[in-house]
Amino acid sequence: MKFLPIISDSNVRFKRWKKVLESPRVMRKEGITLAEGAHLVQVLLQRRWPVNAVLLSERGINEEAQGLLNQFEGSNVPVFVLSASLYDMLSPVEHGAGIMCEIALPNNPQAPQEPVDALYLDGVQDPGNIGTLIRTAVAAGIKHIAASPTSTHFFSPKALRAGMGAHFGAALYEKIEPSQLKQLFGGRILAADARGGSDIYQSSDWSNQKTCWMMGAEGPGLSQAALQAADERLYIPIESDCESLNVAAAAAICLFEQRRRRLLNR
Amino acid sequence: MKFLPIISDSNVRFKRWKKVLESPRVMRKEGITLAEGAHLVQVLLQRRWPVNAVLLSERGINEEAQGLLNQFEGSNVPVFVLSASLYDMLSPVEHGAGIMCEIALPNNPQAPQEPVDALYLDGVQDPGNIGTLIRTAVAAGIKHIAASPTSTHFFSPKALRAGMGAHFGAALYEKIEPSQLKQLFGGRILAADARGGSDIYQSSDWSNQKTCWMMGAEGPGLSQAALQAADERLYIPIESDCESLNVAAAAAICLFEQRRRRLLNR
Repeated sequence: MKFLPIISDSNVRFKRWKKVLESPRVMRKEGITLAEGAHLVQVLLQRRWPVNAVLLSERGINEEAQGLLNQFEGSNVPVFVLSASLYDMLSPVEHGAGIMCEIALPNNPQAPQEPVDALYLDGVQDPGNIGTLIRTAVAAGIKHIAASPTSTHFFSPKALRAGMGAHFGAALYEKIEPSQLKQLFGGRILAADARGGSDIYQSSDWSNQKTCWMMGAEGPGLSQAALQAADERLYIPIESDCESLNVAAAAAICLFEQRRRRLLNR
Repeated sequence: MKFLPIISDSNVRFKRWKKVLESPRVMRKEGITLAEGAHLVQVLLQRRWPVNAVLLSERGINEEAQGLLNQFEGSNVPVFVLSASLYDMLSPVEHGAGIMCEIALPNNPQAPQEPVDALYLDGVQDPGNIGTLIRTAVAAGIKHIAASPTSTHFFSPKALRAGMGAHFGAALYEKIEPSQLKQLFGGRILAADARGGSDIYQSSDWSNQKTCWMMGAEGPGLSQAALQAADERLYIPIESDCESLNVAAAAAICLFEQRRRRLLNR
């Protein structure tokens, strides 16, 4: 296996990766992102996801990462070894695993042929929350996840890291307006809304058909456009002296309440 | 109101804050932490939590933060104005609100007099997760939260920020061993364990008494000591091709399943 060293921050490839990291706009334009950590690289290999390049830290990698690296032997995927400081500038976590992959951003998948369960993210900004939301949805059996144009990118390195590989088992749709959800997913549109509607635990009719749960940004909550698209508004009955839940915690509660009902009614 | 400028990174107070930020060990030794953002400052004022100092960014503050600052008028709390770069070095978020408070770390509260519902964090490292866990527990009506000596600090600036004020409505116990939980909280000890036990939705006897839910670190899960202290092991039935949930998402599901049962049985 040939290793191509990168030791200068004026290297053309490094500059491109750095720009992609710093700007979601550039990421979309270049059509690539970075997936860091042994776990993500393993999922990429398992799913035979196309990999453009492997990036290693000159600090070296552990046995697990070495085993993964060996699987690129004989492929045409170039392997770059970055000086430690350059690697750290690209890693979404402080103590990175020393291995990451450049991958191509996928296009939006085709619309499903029949109604499906789905999750919709309306203006969610934090990449860690985005990744956790995808991971939670997939764990709850929901593989179709869409985001508004006002949400942050599904595939930023931080969101990938928080998703722990769930991205690659999901159908992810970006830049979707609330008004498109009915047509796209075909199910009942549910708004998780701290400001009103029915108690999620007291209401029952929403759970016996396909649904699309809409979750809003922290603070503002769901947009007017999202609320207008909703068939039903539901709230989680939290303690009265509390303001709100983190959006990823709220989604976990809603999606697993749905899962509980489906499992018990089997 | 008198404003005390801090423009040099060799200022003694600044150096102390910086060290506290960088090292949980120093934070404990100095007995102080930093709470950033208008929302946290508002909660501190509402709860009359003792504030050692107010720190502002020279960039200025918005109207909301100005209103909060006015409430310190006439108090003896010193107000420091930091140059923008120094403020940003202390802020746990990139675009801080321009206002934060130095507060004293509280001691562990006294043990409750009768059995209480509780949450126990075993080796949880990520400060964002710690803060979200406290926020979710308080929203679920659980105000007693303990952490193992192997968990990260409850009161780090990042954990405070993610907690959104929930810290100040909770009783937080640090450096607690799993073997102490029965004596401390008096309830049934439940282990959330992805590796085995009973399906949380299929089992019922755990929910009709006070409980202490134990949540483990991502990856390793609960320690042997925690599993040994458990009265019962429970798992969340996730999709079979998924590995695990984020610890804060898993806790939201468990604590709100408990809440759902309690609310419906009222």
